[in-house]
Amino acid sequence: MKRFVLLLSAIVVAGTGQPKPESDAPQYTSDGELIRPTNYREWVYLSSGLGMTYGPAAAQNTTREPAFDNVFVTRAAYRHFLETGAWPDKTMFALEIRASRSHGSINNGGHYQTDLLGVEVEVKDESRPAKWAFYGFGKSAPAAKQIPTTATCYTCHPAQGAVDNTFVQFYPELLEVARRKGTLTAAYLASEGK
Amino acid sequence: MKRFVLLLSAIVVAGTGQPKPESDAPQYTSDGELIRPTNYREWVYLSSGLGMTYGPAAAQNTTREPAFDNVFVTRAAYRHFLETGAWPDKTMFALEIRASRSHGSINNGGHYQTDLLGVEVEVKDESRPAKWAFYGFGKSAPAAKQIPTTATCYTCHPAQGAVDNTFVQFYPELLEVARRKGTLTAAYLASEGK
Repeated sequence: MKRFVLLLSAIVVAGTGQPKPESDAPQYTSDGELIRPTNYREWVYLSSGLGMTYGPAAAQNTTREPAFDNVFVTRAAYRHFLETGAWPDKTMFALEIRASRSHGSINNGGHYQTDLLGVEVEVKDESRPAKWAFYGFGKSAPAAKQIPTTATCYTCHPAQGAVDNTFVQFYPELLEVARRKGTLTAAYLASEGK
Repeated sequence: MKRFVLLLSAIVVAGTGQPKPESDAPQYTSDGELIRPTNYREWVYLSSGLGMTYGPAAAQNTTREPAFDNVFVTRAAYRHFLETGAWPDKTMFALEIRASRSHGSINNGGHYQTDLLGVEVEVKDESRPAKWAFYGFGKSAPAAKQIPTTATCYTCHPAQGAVDNTFVQFYPELLEVARRKGTLTAAYLASEGK
């Protein structure tokens, strides 16, 4: 049945004349580098911050203005999370860093987003010891080696992420889903009372 | 052929067990109110601002911290824009306003997003004299009357939007598309040199 559904999907895509959607699953080069997901802006948006300290990508902002971070997750993983409060194997997150400006066009206050500064991707892979792997693509790298497991992301995410290595506490709609489904970590629940 | 494609789409959706996707087209009550699009967070994300003054929704922020605005557009309209640099009839934009916080969990600086403050929707409707109509849903209204055409959105958007009533100058990826496709307004192009 699954094969049949996939065939029908292919027909629908061909019939509508839409661009062929890229797979939601991580794709690797022959030497194990993650191929940059070029369609991450069509994944589901989770939230943004401005000037947050959120992983090594924050250091890529060399402009004076604070940087925005925009977080996206693969569509199938998002649907799975709405139903279960948990991330399935092969979930991918993209963290996009953008420069900000205050003055431009009709805007004279606050901040809006401008140039891309970098993209980082987090992949859930249950075949690996740490379950999650991180990759940094900068502005344009077509593929990236895994960030070494000595980096702080591999200790901070599992310790501080409200759900399974991910900062669901900063994604307001998903935080409520996780609360209803009972998937918030004990550490996060303990920290809420403080 | 179009009917055939639609039938196949329905089969695929049924076969995968995914929730039935809501239509991308605006839906109205019998007395002409726009029905709140409850799935707008699964549309394509365009950009966010913090503390920008962008339409009457900005006034809904009664907290001390500046508000974020997140902008989404219907998926079919997004694909059309990538191909043409223009918005098709029935395009819908959602502007979501969220409160911000600086201190919470591991975050001690900058701003991240918290509670929903309101949602506004802009619809392209070529059957109406002004071509575009605006609706304000607040936090939870299931439907909304059109915002009266005396509101400033009806004069500011066509005068200041870089492409056809929309603030493409604040959506960095689409701004480059519009430049390549030659769909930026003459007024916007003139303002760039200043």
